[in-house]
Amino acid sequence: MSSTMNKPHAITCKAAVAWGPGEPLVIEEVQVSPPQPQEIRIKVVSTSLCRSDLTAWETQVIIFLALLAFCLLKDWPGTDTGSFPTMRPFCFKQAIFPRIFGHEASGIVESVGAGVTEFIEGDHVLTVFIGECQTCKHCRSVKSNTCEVLGLERRGVMHSDQQTRFSIKGKPVYHYCAVSSFSEYTVVHSGCAVKVSSVAPLDKICLLSCGLAAGLGAAWNVADISKGSTVVIFGLGTVGLSVAQGAKIRGACRIIGVDTNPEKSEKAKVFGITEFLNPNDCNEPIQQVIKRITDGGADYSFECIGDTGMITTALQSCCDGWGLTVTLGVPKVKPEVAAHYGLFLSGRTLKGTLFGRWKPKSDLPSLLDMYSKKEIMIDEFITHDLQFGDINKAFNLMKEGKCLRCVIHMPN
Amino acid sequence: MSSTMNKPHAITCKAAVAWGPGEPLVIEEVQVSPPQPQEIRIKVVSTSLCRSDLTAWETQVIIFLALLAFCLLKDWPGTDTGSFPTMRPFCFKQAIFPRIFGHEASGIVESVGAGVTEFIEGDHVLTVFIGECQTCKHCRSVKSNTCEVLGLERRGVMHSDQQTRFSIKGKPVYHYCAVSSFSEYTVVHSGCAVKVSSVAPLDKICLLSCGLAAGLGAAWNVADISKGSTVVIFGLGTVGLSVAQGAKIRGACRIIGVDTNPEKSEKAKVFGITEFLNPNDCNEPIQQVIKRITDGGADYSFECIGDTGMITTALQSCCDGWGLTVTLGVPKVKPEVAAHYGLFLSGRTLKGTLFGRWKPKSDLPSLLDMYSKKEIMIDEFITHDLQFGDINKAFNLMKEGKCLRCVIHMPN
Repeated sequence: MSSTMNKPHAITCKAAVAWGPGEPLVIEEVQVSPPQPQEIRIKVVSTSLCRSDLTAWETQVIIFLALLAFCLLKDWPGTDTGSFPTMRPFCFKQAIFPRIFGHEASGIVESVGAGVTEFIEGDHVLTVFIGECQTCKHCRSVKSNTCEVLGLERRGVMHSDQQTRFSIKGKPVYHYCAVSSFSEYTVVHSGCAVKVSSVAPLDKICLLSCGLAAGLGAAWNVADISKGSTVVIFGLGTVGLSVAQGAKIRGACRIIGVDTNPEKSEKAKVFGITEFLNPNDCNEPIQQVIKRITDGGADYSFECIGDTGMITTALQSCCDGWGLTVTLGVPKVKPEVAAHYGLFLSGRTLKGTLFGRWKPKSDLPSLLDMYSKKEIMIDEFITHDLQFGDINKAFNLMKEGKCLRCVIHMPN
Repeated sequence: MSSTMNKPHAITCKAAVAWGPGEPLVIEEVQVSPPQPQEIRIKVVSTSLCRSDLTAWETQVIIFLALLAFCLLKDWPGTDTGSFPTMRPFCFKQAIFPRIFGHEASGIVESVGAGVTEFIEGDHVLTVFIGECQTCKHCRSVKSNTCEVLGLERRGVMHSDQQTRFSIKGKPVYHYCAVSSFSEYTVVHSGCAVKVSSVAPLDKICLLSCGLAAGLGAAWNVADISKGSTVVIFGLGTVGLSVAQGAKIRGACRIIGVDTNPEKSEKAKVFGITEFLNPNDCNEPIQQVIKRITDGGADYSFECIGDTGMITTALQSCCDGWGLTVTLGVPKVKPEVAAHYGLFLSGRTLKGTLFGRWKPKSDLPSLLDMYSKKEIMIDEFITHDLQFGDINKAFNLMKEGKCLRCVIHMPN
């Protein structure tokens, strides 16, 4: 690894490159371009593996299934997805490889591009997968975090010029969510980084970059869970358990966790789950169990698996009148949410959210502050600490459902 | 017709009986039982025809299509519909005939059953199709109007004993929504009637029994439309135009009406529609037109047709971040709402509502008060006044899209 502080030229460093879908990552020497205008180059300190890295890494399989669905369902409503771009690459492109995954990360600013005034070399930062330009109509609205300029970028390039900042021997290596933190150095738009205190532990707070914050935001900003309420959470990974943490802090009286992995039961209590249900242990559909034990359904239900069928189940599990279902997961296969209209007419609401409706620059400092005051848990989500060279272990642990968050420590 | 004031025995009077689906109503002599405990018998004064009367009248066709869908779609999510009972009779029963339709109505209390303290003979009332028991958890919550005791009753009987109060020569004639106002006299649960001032014009305010109130409530209680916002309304019948009225009163700056009937264009302006779009005149899908002319989509969209496919279109027509779709219609055929998950993940919300989340007894008096102060329009929705004997004309006018509301005046 070259030391290049203050030198505005390419860095050569190690990165974990995915050469194809589902193939183990390979630690390679990559060239990292200097930051372009409004960009910063970061020395990554810690990065954790999120489920959506895994989902995108497995993309080829998804393409096949999505195309199959496309052929089978002639009136498939997937052709207009709002600004959410997932299905476009699925339908019209091959998966994007070689690629550097990773988007939950902390690091130190190594250099800044032209026009950057918010950051200087040496600043500690968190990366974020949806940025905040602070000027578009969504950034100016209190109701949205879907920045029009720095929204979810899934084409494997930078927002500004649709190019990559990584290469191997002159050939492009693609980004993931315009973050790509599985590299010793990376380049991000300055709108996709949040300055943090130099005393905040970078090896913990990287979890706030995505899943943990997404769960808390879903509970607080999107559902606005009220005291004494009943909550059902489908999927007890980091996102689901972070929803549980948020529900507990809001004073929910029952927080029912649903997962097919019985090993999740014990750990889930730490985050506030008061009852654990394994659908495989039930003799009736899980939504019927939930309706029975909650006198008609929960006040809130959260889909944290990434399964559109489970969104329907989550709707059926909440009550008439004011039942609210929040979907947070990115489905791997069937992209279509389907539910009987009667579920809505009898008063249910379905909402979705990316990153828990947090605006990263405006809102993450308050979560960091809560962590420093021990008002929210982060450390408890970290089940494994791994060195960068062992990054494939993190992928295997997540595939096998053996971890919450694996934090990958980059070389000093 | 017998005069039976104060006599607690059956009344013989005229009613418009539907003998089979789609068959013209026949004015018949029916026997109307005395009110049972907690019920009241009403002399109907005025009743208007609502689209859902027509939909239920045409039910046989729907049954066929619903069963067809049931066979074709193996993973059909219609088997759990919350408390909304629509599909249950569709799947397991034949349509309910002979039957007396009508649920938007005003009248005068003729007699009261045991235990009724809220009403006395001579009180002026509105009927409502979902009641308010004022004691269940939904009636006690500010967030719901889905009364657990007096919810939507679509089995053609009374809530209390699952029996009818109408008969012809001893054979039962079924109710509709536990109201059945196409009869000179009817019996309703006292929780399904709202006392009104004796000076309020019964031939106008009957419209507040259903569609007009539903539209206002969707705009105010469910969507909570904000000043300066952009609204799209699919379907410019009474419900859709009442949403428009509600949006205008809230100060929405653009109220876009969508309808395939060009005759709706001119009348719609009266209620606040600022732009009229006919999908048949557009060269691209209507949601693309709307997104283009609204810079990314409307703030709110309302599905007022009763077409689940249009719910998807409505979702696609509202914006990322805070776009809210409210569905009010009762679909005649495909009961499944389907939409790409990306529409939700990018921040949209889908809500449904029955009767605009108004609690009838608690809330209708405020709407009546607004009408008396000319703050809301009712008269303008009445396109036809018909005598009871001409009731089939009302059905024909609605089938042909030639009316908003036909008010049917009962004999004195």
